[in-house]
Amino acid sequence: MGRLVMKFGGTSVADVERIRNVARHVEREVKAGHHVAVVVSAMAGTTDRLAGWCREAAPFHDAREYDAIVASGEQVTSGLLAIVLQDMGIPARSWHGWQIPLKTDGVHGAARIAAIDGDEIRKRMEQGQVAVIAGFQGIGPDKRITTLGRGGSDTSAVAVAAALDAACDIYTDVDGVYTADPRIVSAARKLDRISYEEMLEQASLGAKVLQTRSVELAMVYKVPLQVRSSFEPPDAANQNKPDGTGPGTLVCDEERIVEQHVVSGIAYSRDEAKVAIRKVKDQPGVSASLFGPLAEADISVDMIVQNVSADGSTADITFTVARKDLQKAIEVLNGVKDKIGFQELMHSADVAKVSVVGIGMRSHAGVAARMFKSLAEKGINIQAITTSEIKVSVLIDEAYTELAVRALHQAYGLDAKH
Amino acid sequence: MGRLVMKFGGTSVADVERIRNVARHVEREVKAGHHVAVVVSAMAGTTDRLAGWCREAAPFHDAREYDAIVASGEQVTSGLLAIVLQDMGIPARSWHGWQIPLKTDGVHGAARIAAIDGDEIRKRMEQGQVAVIAGFQGIGPDKRITTLGRGGSDTSAVAVAAALDAACDIYTDVDGVYTADPRIVSAARKLDRISYEEMLEQASLGAKVLQTRSVELAMVYKVPLQVRSSFEPPDAANQNKPDGTGPGTLVCDEERIVEQHVVSGIAYSRDEAKVAIRKVKDQPGVSASLFGPLAEADISVDMIVQNVSADGSTADITFTVARKDLQKAIEVLNGVKDKIGFQELMHSADVAKVSVVGIGMRSHAGVAARMFKSLAEKGINIQAITTSEIKVSVLIDEAYTELAVRALHQAYGLDAKH
Repeated sequence: MGRLVMKFGGTSVADVERIRNVARHVEREVKAGHHVAVVVSAMAGTTDRLAGWCREAAPFHDAREYDAIVASGEQVTSGLLAIVLQDMGIPARSWHGWQIPLKTDGVHGAARIAAIDGDEIRKRMEQGQVAVIAGFQGIGPDKRITTLGRGGSDTSAVAVAAALDAACDIYTDVDGVYTADPRIVSAARKLDRISYEEMLEQASLGAKVLQTRSVELAMVYKVPLQVRSSFEPPDAANQNKPDGTGPGTLVCDEERIVEQHVVSGIAYSRDEAKVAIRKVKDQPGVSASLFGPLAEADISVDMIVQNVSADGSTADITFTVARKDLQKAIEVLNGVKDKIGFQELMHSADVAKVSVVGIGMRSHAGVAARMFKSLAEKGINIQAITTSEIKVSVLIDEAYTELAVRALHQAYGLDAKH
Repeated sequence: MGRLVMKFGGTSVADVERIRNVARHVEREVKAGHHVAVVVSAMAGTTDRLAGWCREAAPFHDAREYDAIVASGEQVTSGLLAIVLQDMGIPARSWHGWQIPLKTDGVHGAARIAAIDGDEIRKRMEQGQVAVIAGFQGIGPDKRITTLGRGGSDTSAVAVAAALDAACDIYTDVDGVYTADPRIVSAARKLDRISYEEMLEQASLGAKVLQTRSVELAMVYKVPLQVRSSFEPPDAANQNKPDGTGPGTLVCDEERIVEQHVVSGIAYSRDEAKVAIRKVKDQPGVSASLFGPLAEADISVDMIVQNVSADGSTADITFTVARKDLQKAIEVLNGVKDKIGFQELMHSADVAKVSVVGIGMRSHAGVAARMFKSLAEKGINIQAITTSEIKVSVLIDEAYTELAVRALHQAYGLDAKH
């Protein structure tokens, strides 16, 4: 048995009783012979409360102080878990970011991990001591506490696993990665395995199981990543599910996925808004004059569709932004209206993005065509399309979201056989 | 204007609004030209909540983890105060114990300060940056966070002041040190100055204005210590009181106290319990066999009175312990009863200790005599007596506490002239 990093999120450590439950998961792995490090988030709600105090202190505040304040949440849970483990007879100690040290680039509030010195922790793990690591935090070149940005505990866990040459189990409130959101698609199946690339697309498309950056990092360092449920009984062994899949979903290299599907999942996101600009003068530089000011205002643009008029003199440009950015985007564009010279600006927040994801697309033609056909059969109009090597996304009327996800789930043969 | 350390306790930083009030106190001193460091406690209630979680995790828990957990409270308030100060246009940054570093002896849960490297902080203070220091915490030789024990933020503040060669203002919920508890003695007066020695006796006798260890440290390093109110309007200048005294009470060397009183204050403590052991065989080693087991059980014994019987064969021994230790003391003594061989054990928790304190006692005879006479005039029986160079303490029936304090306050001429 090798080294294992186990990561538990805020709802799994929300109080001392739940921390005891986490400890039983750890105990199971220790008894199975693993050398274990645990990465914990702050108690659910704590980071929000601390961040709220920072805003109350000053709406615009020093990110270095913000980091020093919010990092305290993980400090508390790591200490409590160490105490509970010791009480169960398992040697354990807590580690803060600066104690490891987990060095970051020093961008306060959204730091990236630069280097982790795993020597001391590895030595102690080999002596049987569980390392309980405060997630989400590190130390910058200025010797001050840095945080990795929201959701950063997943990233901490994967980075620690990479440094320790360990596998990484991410415990969350679902028992794995599904072919679609089970709340929408009752026939959705838990995947036994999924490739890093697919998981990355799923994560960036709105499936909130894993943090995008943590998947990137796992892919780069080939860390075997497993998504598991922290709410299953901890004393049950790592039993397979009735459907024959393992206890969770393994995120791994595609070579390790035996049974390949063309499409592994259907994702959706309602966090979208559409902006359409009518009759822009179609001349060189028009895109830059449109999207430059949006980028300056820190607004990310996702899908872009451009239609040139029959005579070639004007174009209609449609694009999407995050729904929370819509109002700001409209203001920015109206501010440059005279400079760009467009006739009309239309917008809508009643849109959703539905995506099919699968590494099999690389070698299978017709994936997009099947998507369009399925949606057409249900009378769903496609407002925009984007594709990557392993996904096709369409923008549709939000009201059709569930219908579209279910139709596509069936069309690609993902429905569970009952 | 020189360097100044300002210390604020938990009730003064209980929420962001109060932290803003603290910042205005700091602003006043900065504008007066001081180079300022601030030491803060955790928000009132935070340390208790964190300590409660530790106990919930395991009744007997690793003091190293306890330290890592509870030190987070001061981390939060130091960051918030730094943000508020910056928002007011005052350069500031937070410092955790390990960042300074404030090195301790590594006794987790009750560490003593070993060394403080004040160079970096001093340099920044000279550049106009306020150092906001998380109180109560340091770093041990094991590179882990250590806390100084409850009330340790006062000690942090005095130690930092000593390292920076600064004066130290302790802000609390009273505006100074009084000749007696104003809730009992309406004629009590705020002292303009009090000597370290007297303050030390007052602190150890139950006056809860300052932590005993912080006064010891101030005395050793000759740190001028001022007790002030954080609830007075911060924008008011350092005005004198109507009675001619300064804004607080200065704790300093006795040479600096111009107007000497024989007695500077009357202290009392209800935190006492009396144990009387009747007819112990009076032989060598009896005291050791009695007090040895108590010391082993971590029970401190305060006043001790021994009466030998007329024929010299047996003795009655009376002593006091802290009220919370009484039950444990009785159990310990009954456990060794056969070995020691005493006839009877009596005990009472209805006792109080009343003390008169004053450096003038050294050169003035008759202080104790006046005390006994005053109490006798009020019909108050004295159950035990202890004295030091600058204090006389008597144990009395608890019911007479207020009467005794008021009588002594008048007898030593401490009543305010109206």
